[in-house]
Parts: sequence; structure tokens; C-alpha cells
Amino acid sequence: MPKITLVALTITILALVQFFFFLQLVGMARQRYNVKAPAVTGHDVFERYFRVQMNTLEQLILFLPALWITAIYAFVAYYWIALIGACYLVGRFIYQRSYVADPSKRSLGFGLSALPVLALLLIDIVGVIMLWVRSP
Amino acid sequence: MPKITLVALTITILALVQFFFFLQLVGMARQRYNVKAPAVTGHDVFERYFRVQMNTLEQLILFLPALWITAIYAFVAYYWIALIGACYLVGRFIYQRSYVADPSKRSLGFGLSALPVLALLLIDIVGVIMLWVRSP
Amino acid sequence: MPKITLVALTITILALVQFFFFLQLVGMARQRYNVKAPAVTGHDVFERYFRVQMNTLEQLILFLPALWITAIYAFVAYYWIALIGACYLVGRFIYQRSYVADPSKRSLGFGLSALPVLALLLIDIVGVIMLWVRSP
Repeated sequence: MPKITLVALTITILALVQFFFFLQLVGMARQRYNVKAPAVTGHDVFERYFRVQMNTLEQLILFLPALWITAIYAFVAYYWIALIGACYLVGRFIYQRSYVADPSKRSLGFGLSALPVLALLLIDIVGVIMLWVRSP
Repeated sequence: MPKITLVALTITILALVQFFFFLQLVGMARQRYNVKAPAVTGHDVFERYFRVQMNTLEQLILFLPALWITAIYAFVAYYWIALIGACYLVGRFIYQRSYVADPSKRSLGFGLSALPVLALLLIDIVGVIMLWVRSP
Repeated sequence: MPKITLVALTITILALVQFFFFLQLVGMARQRYNVKAPAVTGHDVFERYFRVQMNTLEQLILFLPALWITAIYAFVAYYWIALIGACYLVGRFIYQRSYVADPSKRSLGFGLSALPVLALLLIDIVGVIMLWVRSP
């Protein structure tokens, strides 16, 4: 198996496990702050956990397809994918910690995890244009 | 075509059709309970339909990638994937029915559809570790 | 590379870039209308941008898997996929413009982008039934 596939698989599973973990935190916050379903508002700290979850969901729908297009067509070397993936995962954890602590301080973590998504999108745009150019 | 691919394709399409159906229910509930866009609150029963939709979206972003990693690398036999998929689909329907009837009774359906997601994640974690170990 | 793959790749990246753009609009609307995180309500126009983003997320989780199942198994010719994809992308832009201008006028754009999703799902249902029938 090519190393690039193995790296993309590993990043994907770590990103899914991280999101699964964020979902559990929302469930726990729902209990702790007594926010009764179907409400998703009513306690400021619960709302922070909930917004981290929703924002991560929005990033994942960009991150996972962009990651796999990069990996399948090997638009960059495997270590670049490892670096981009690590940056996303660490950025998301910082985002989660800082958002729950103080929503006004979420910028660093947000940027650290949004930048890899933007990088993958740019790589894929250039990569697909190259595929069109080379296509007979 | 390998049977495992055919099974994963079938589960995927059923899961997408089910989510499409949940989206229609939200649209119908919006009309019936007169919740004007862009609001997503204002009537408790509408909010239940809406939360079923959002929760299913959160599960799908985990379920679909985890399912396909399991299927593509054949980490388990095809009948296990069929069983896990059936459990997810039935669990989601029970979740939808019970949540709309009474949000406090959503646990059974939630568990039935979250367990398959957890099972797939665990299978994938073990599977990818094995791939790393075997990789030269 | 088969033309159908190249078309599906191009549509995927355009759909991701479009969603990325909608996310930026929400961030800008958050500033302009002074909606402080973690709130996602409080100003009607902000809520319109936010609902466009959420609705696009819901459509993407259907659109991308359905598109790739159609493309990988070549259930239809590449120009049909190009047409369906273009309809989705243009529909989403009309949806975004009209929803922000006046939520009651979002139907045309919604329909134009939901129809391609429905078309892909129907193609995939028929396609997978045919795969089962032909499978030994």
C-alpha cells in the first residue's frame, strides 16, 4: 500500500475519532447544564460545546473530500499530507479548548484548522487543472 | 464486483435515501407548524424533526467514511458490514419515530444507530494499525 | 484518466469551494450584524446566511456520495454528470442570493439544487439494483 494512502487513512480515522469525542462532550454538556432535547440553546457553556461540534462538522465535509482527492491523485508528497493533517487535528483541539474557555479566543485554533483545509483546496484546484491540461 | 462493495453501496444509498426522507419531513413540519424561514425554533414538534435531521447529519459524516474504509480494505467479512448497516438504518428509524413522539425516549434508537458507528470506528482503528504493522 | 472522473473531480472541487465561500459569508455577517459567538441567532439577516450554510451542508452530504457512486460505476455518460453538477452549483448560488434577499423567495434556487441530488439518488438506486441483478 502506498505510504500516502496509509497517511490519509490514519488522518481520516483520527479526525473521525476526534469528532466522535466532540459529540460525546456535547452529550455530557447537555446533562451537566440540563439542556432538555430538542433545545440546543439555554445555557451559554452548552452552546459553546454545541458550536464546536457544528463547526467541526462544517470543516469535515470540506477536509475529508479535499484530503482524499489530494491523496488519491498524489498531488503532493505523503509528508506534506501528514503535516497538513497534523495541523488540522491539533488546530481543532486548540479550537475546542479555547472556544469552551472563552469564545472570543477561538481564532488561533480556528485558523490552525481552517488553513489546512484551504491548503488542500488550493492543492486540489491546481491539481485538477493540471489533470485537465494533460488530458488528451 | 466483490460482495462487500455491493453491500456497502446498498447501505450507503439506503442511508442517503433515509436522510433525504428526514429532510422532507422537516420541510413538511415547517409548513404544518408555520415556522417561517430562517427560524429553526418556535414550535417544539418542528424542533424535534429538525434535531433528528441534524443528528442524522452528524452521524452520517462518521458512518459513511468509516463504512467505506471497512469495505474497501475488507477489514471484516461482508455479512458483518450488512449487519452493522442494517442496525444503523433500523436504529435511525426508531430514533426518528421515538424522538418526534417524545424526545426523552430517544435513547434506544440513538444507541442502536450510534453503536454501529462506534463498531466501524473500532474496526478501522485496528485495521489501520495492522496495515501500518504490515507495511514495509 | 476517464473523462467521467475528471468531470466528477471538477464538480466536487467547485462544490467545496462554493461551500467554503458560504462559510466566509457567515463569518462576515457575524461581524457586520454583531452576532457574538456562540449565538447563531439575534439578527434576521445573519440567520439567513447561517441557514444557507447549514442547508448547503445538508445537501453536500447527499450530493457528494451520490455523485461519486454515479461516476465510479459510470451509471450515466459524463455529460449527464456535468449537466447535473452544473445545475446543482448554479441552483445553490441562486438559492444563496435569493434566501439572503428574501427567505420566502428561496424556492427556485432550492429546487434547482435539490433536483440534481434527487436525480443522482434515483440513478444510483437503479444502478445498484442492476449491479445486484447482474451479480452472480
